[in-house]
Amino acid sequence: MGELRKDPILGRWVIISTERSKRPDSFVKEKEKTEDNKDKCPFCEGREKMTPPEIYSLRAPNTKPDEPDWRVRVVPNKFPALNTETELEKRGYGVHDMMSSFGAHEVIIETPDHDRDIKDQTIDEISDVIRVLQYRVEELQKDERFRYILIFKNKGKEAGASIRHPHYQIIGLPITPKRVREELHGAENYYKLKERCIYCDLIKQEKSWGERIIHETDAFISFCPYASRFPFEVWILPKDHSIDFYSRKVKDKIKPLAGMLKVILSKLSNVLDDPEYNYIIHTAPNRFARRDYWKTIEQDFHWHIELFPRLTRVAGFEWGSGFYINPTSPEEAAKFLKEQKC
Amino acid sequence: MGELRKDPILGRWVIISTERSKRPDSFVKEKEKTEDNKDKCPFCEGREKMTPPEIYSLRAPNTKPDEPDWRVRVVPNKFPALNTETELEKRGYGVHDMMSSFGAHEVIIETPDHDRDIKDQTIDEISDVIRVLQYRVEELQKDERFRYILIFKNKGKEAGASIRHPHYQIIGLPITPKRVREELHGAENYYKLKERCIYCDLIKQEKSWGERIIHETDAFISFCPYASRFPFEVWILPKDHSIDFYSRKVKDKIKPLAGMLKVILSKLSNVLDDPEYNYIIHTAPNRFARRDYWKTIEQDFHWHIELFPRLTRVAGFEWGSGFYINPTSPEEAAKFLKEQKC
Repeated sequence: MGELRKDPILGRWVIISTERSKRPDSFVKEKEKTEDNKDKCPFCEGREKMTPPEIYSLRAPNTKPDEPDWRVRVVPNKFPALNTETELEKRGYGVHDMMSSFGAHEVIIETPDHDRDIKDQTIDEISDVIRVLQYRVEELQKDERFRYILIFKNKGKEAGASIRHPHYQIIGLPITPKRVREELHGAENYYKLKERCIYCDLIKQEKSWGERIIHETDAFISFCPYASRFPFEVWILPKDHSIDFYSRKVKDKIKPLAGMLKVILSKLSNVLDDPEYNYIIHTAPNRFARRDYWKTIEQDFHWHIELFPRLTRVAGFEWGSGFYINPTSPEEAAKFLKEQKC
Repeated sequence: MGELRKDPILGRWVIISTERSKRPDSFVKEKEKTEDNKDKCPFCEGREKMTPPEIYSLRAPNTKPDEPDWRVRVVPNKFPALNTETELEKRGYGVHDMMSSFGAHEVIIETPDHDRDIKDQTIDEISDVIRVLQYRVEELQKDERFRYILIFKNKGKEAGASIRHPHYQIIGLPITPKRVREELHGAENYYKLKERCIYCDLIKQEKSWGERIIHETDAFISFCPYASRFPFEVWILPKDHSIDFYSRKVKDKIKPLAGMLKVILSKLSNVLDDPEYNYIIHTAPNRFARRDYWKTIEQDFHWHIELFPRLTRVAGFEWGSGFYINPTSPEEAAKFLKEQKC
């Protein structure tokens, strides 16, 4: 039988289920491929007019916005969940609270080439995208109405992506969301108790145990976390303590970060035959607003990436309990990924 | 544009997105049907030997366990996430905690007939199943190692069900899970502030507004909650305050509950063309253990059912933030369901 493991930051339990144990090939058979309308893709070079006007781009000298010959392109989401043109308004509704749908929703098109996934991009190309992500977060943070800027990537239909062309999304929110607050509070509580960053401690532990580490470089480490919710869940952390994805420390390490992303996504692609996945950058909230409230987190939060292939379905048990059932132990997943050439 | 709404119990925000607004027929086109191996279904009458030996059943007089001629059958899950034969053991692992995989995992087969969904069952048949669910929870609660018994139903592949034959699952857990604790604490905090049950207040509010109510009887009310996470999310609550799904008060109202379930599932099936769904019974934790700790919840918790068709995919934004984007307003969903004949 398996065992139950608790995430030390969120207090979330995971059932590592050896009764239902699954190897990579059993996932490969199950997945369905995303429908791909490459002929009509609005993110491809030459179809710039199909998106709303671009906000920013890296493009060849002497070319104009919304014309071809770009490397990275930022556009508003055509069907935004939130909108900066709305006034920020908050009010009660009986026992409920509501807010107007103020917020930002941007799409970062990583490459003009429809089929050029991170694993196929060069280190320079991936570095360009990271720089653009950092730039957009810094620009959005200048608006003090934003409390949190979330950066994420959905790849494939199972992961919620409607377009296959490689892209990230950025959502700027007028509040720090529940899931982020839980993580900040978990890390803060640990710091209060130990006066150490829990993520720094996690890195030390994983290094001493070794069995869940996938790849390590001078600046970054990647492993399958002890309490992985999902098969082949991977975390990437900077080894040097740093709170923000866009801090000075990270700007000096863009190429090593790009290299780590390329290695991890190549390994995942090889082991799981190009899986669909979600990948989320966990970074500190905007500190322009509420500067005092978040002043301690320079020590107690540590930015990182959480990535999980979408191989299993979340069902009634998970929704009802907040438990997860993971049919592949993180030790086994890490072994497959570590041994995989890339 | 839409608006942001906050769940008053969990503090979870939902984006009601009119930009992405969807009517029922747009969901119907998108869904894929579950593969159905009816010829090999281990839950069908006549294949009793394909399941582990039955724990309990309602069956014809003078028939033996694991033989045909039954109405409802309870069997252990063949691939259990947890197991009662394991010793309950808890220990630390660095900054993590772990437990052995002690627990119960049972399957309640609702009917011998593969295609007889709740909407097709008679009130007497549904009532039989409810009585069996209550009986199993009460039996499991006699073991003081269980802190929480979760009852849920997954219908269809999208909802995580591997077998189409109508069934519920019960999982007995050695801890009260995170999601349940959050709900209990949310309700407790409201009670401390107001000395009223938040669910009783919700019922009063929904009745006074009217626009989200789907169906109401003497004993039960159903509505699409104001901060619905998902399109066509439905909550069913007993109108009379009661903490447990298996309390005396509920045992006197089994037929009205069966009737409400049949109405709601018929309406959903007609509006959304037999959707896949998850359905979870939210009830109080086992109070045999830790009697003192939970003594206040007789007043401040209120058992209920949360049901949601699986029409949208949860993506990076939801995973990263705990926000949900719902493309159908609960007012619109309730209108469709209310007007639908059944």
